[in-house]
Amino acid sequence: MNSSMNQQILLNSRPIGEPKESDFALVETPIPEPGEGEVLNRTIYLSLDPYMRGRMSDRASYAAAVELGSVMVGGTVSQVMKSNHPQFSAGDFVLGYDGWQAYGISRGETLRKLDPKEAPLSYALGVTGMPGMTAYFALLDVGQPQAGETVVVSAASGAVGAVAGQIALIKGLRVVGVAGSDAKCDYVVKELGFDACINRKTQDLSSALKATCPKGIDVYFDNTAGSILEAVLQQINQGARIPLVGLISQYNAENLPPGPNLMPLLIKRALIKGFLVSDYQHRHSEFVKDVSSWLQEGKLKYKEDVVQKLENAPHAFMGLLQGKNFGKLIVQVSSDPTR
Amino acid sequence: MNSSMNQQILLNSRPIGEPKESDFALVETPIPEPGEGEVLNRTIYLSLDPYMRGRMSDRASYAAAVELGSVMVGGTVSQVMKSNHPQFSAGDFVLGYDGWQAYGISRGETLRKLDPKEAPLSYALGVTGMPGMTAYFALLDVGQPQAGETVVVSAASGAVGAVAGQIALIKGLRVVGVAGSDAKCDYVVKELGFDACINRKTQDLSSALKATCPKGIDVYFDNTAGSILEAVLQQINQGARIPLVGLISQYNAENLPPGPNLMPLLIKRALIKGFLVSDYQHRHSEFVKDVSSWLQEGKLKYKEDVVQKLENAPHAFMGLLQGKNFGKLIVQVSSDPTR
Repeated sequence: MNSSMNQQILLNSRPIGEPKESDFALVETPIPEPGEGEVLNRTIYLSLDPYMRGRMSDRASYAAAVELGSVMVGGTVSQVMKSNHPQFSAGDFVLGYDGWQAYGISRGETLRKLDPKEAPLSYALGVTGMPGMTAYFALLDVGQPQAGETVVVSAASGAVGAVAGQIALIKGLRVVGVAGSDAKCDYVVKELGFDACINRKTQDLSSALKATCPKGIDVYFDNTAGSILEAVLQQINQGARIPLVGLISQYNAENLPPGPNLMPLLIKRALIKGFLVSDYQHRHSEFVKDVSSWLQEGKLKYKEDVVQKLENAPHAFMGLLQGKNFGKLIVQVSSDPTR
Repeated sequence: MNSSMNQQILLNSRPIGEPKESDFALVETPIPEPGEGEVLNRTIYLSLDPYMRGRMSDRASYAAAVELGSVMVGGTVSQVMKSNHPQFSAGDFVLGYDGWQAYGISRGETLRKLDPKEAPLSYALGVTGMPGMTAYFALLDVGQPQAGETVVVSAASGAVGAVAGQIALIKGLRVVGVAGSDAKCDYVVKELGFDACINRKTQDLSSALKATCPKGIDVYFDNTAGSILEAVLQQINQGARIPLVGLISQYNAENLPPGPNLMPLLIKRALIKGFLVSDYQHRHSEFVKDVSSWLQEGKLKYKEDVVQKLENAPHAFMGLLQGKNFGKLIVQVSSDPTR
């Protein structure tokens, strides 16, 4: 890599089914110059998240598709290299949305300064960032968890699920995770303190849910939809709440598969409600206050899966959609001077 | 029919798929004598409702299955013949739950006295009874309709749908019905004032919903689930609310069919919530107050489909599940002295 050049990963073609390497293109371009009111950032960390699969397709979603030939979108933690913006100076650390590239230009209003003394910089892409905030508001606002109830969390060791489950523990619920390997299940039970965890690849979901949720399921924090949602509905309690946070099980599907039969919703007067964290920006401070203190008190643990080098982002992202990551997946694009 | 005998329709066998005549058995038994604290009722009207299909099956539902050989359950309007209960006298008209039979014994606490001067007696099985109350609370409490929004109502000419749509009109919404015949569509548009109605048997649902809901769909009052729900989800607006009130489309299904893909719920942060009117008994008076005045003011119209004689109940009920009724289906079991 030529250090005077920018490195970018572009969307090269729209994936059919699972993305493959050739759907991405790594290119080198000159490092851009910031214009009036703009900032040049050097990317330290790039966040990889399942929602990015949706942006690669041109079917209707909650956000516009990435144009073919454009830089893949994504949240970033960066250091400001040059600033033509009064609120930022070279050397500042910032949370932004520069995408899959080594250098990005931002207008200042899309940036938030980060203080590396408060938490490791990369946390802003995870536990104190969008995934953590998703966990916090989807669980508390849609899930309405009550002490003594039972919550099931799918993708339980993931960036969102692990936080959701731990917040449920803090709120006094019985917490059962669903994850894709014994190692992940061990982690959420032994490290995070979940009451139980089901390995969806080796266990029968229905019988495992019956065994681990003897009083039924009051809240299902749904990151996946698909067969897990279907099995959960069979054990759902009256008045249950299901925040629908993700549909990872089908992000690579070419044709959207049918959902579960909804009879249990009627019988149990339960609700499923779609959730996007962007609706909660005005409540960001509530989230930061609680999560920061839980982190400091050791009540909230956080695991990262850090991949080195931007060029490895496509492969890591493909693994994310297959559940191969273990913890919040981020790409370290350049060195972190605070670590 | 021997007038000194009771006539009863029993559940003879659990239907496989659509109920057939032989799943019911018409028997004559002696008219029972009321015991201490009990009342003997003569059934005037029997309500036939789609939920009864669920009671014929022994799969899990929100209420116990009817035992084989027992009288089919159902709401009834009756006249008290003999009373051993201090609050009821011979001649009183009562709303009860005596089921598919000409005479029933009730404990007084399950009865409510009806005043024939307030409304035709049979209305207590429809617009001022359980179906009307379902329409009222599912629309207002779960649907949260706002003036200027668009609501779609399936089974729009039915006992619940026709009331739900008219309440939405009263609240200032654009109201689009879905029904199973041109005659039903004509009725809900020309008689009830719906803004539009889609004949689901002759029109393409998706394009018809696009055409009739140019601003998208904010509330879907779902009596049917199935393909209508699927088509509605394609046009659903951000923050939409879907009270799931019935799944008529699948009540005869032997194996529960899959539901719609739920991606639109996530994208649009919409909610589906199961609804059972039994949860709202404590708010009965709110409903009665509003609906009575709307009826008196002529804002709420009500159509009944009255079948004569108890022995015709099975055939009428089978037609109900196929959408052959037109208006609230009731069986006139004996003469109504107030008409």
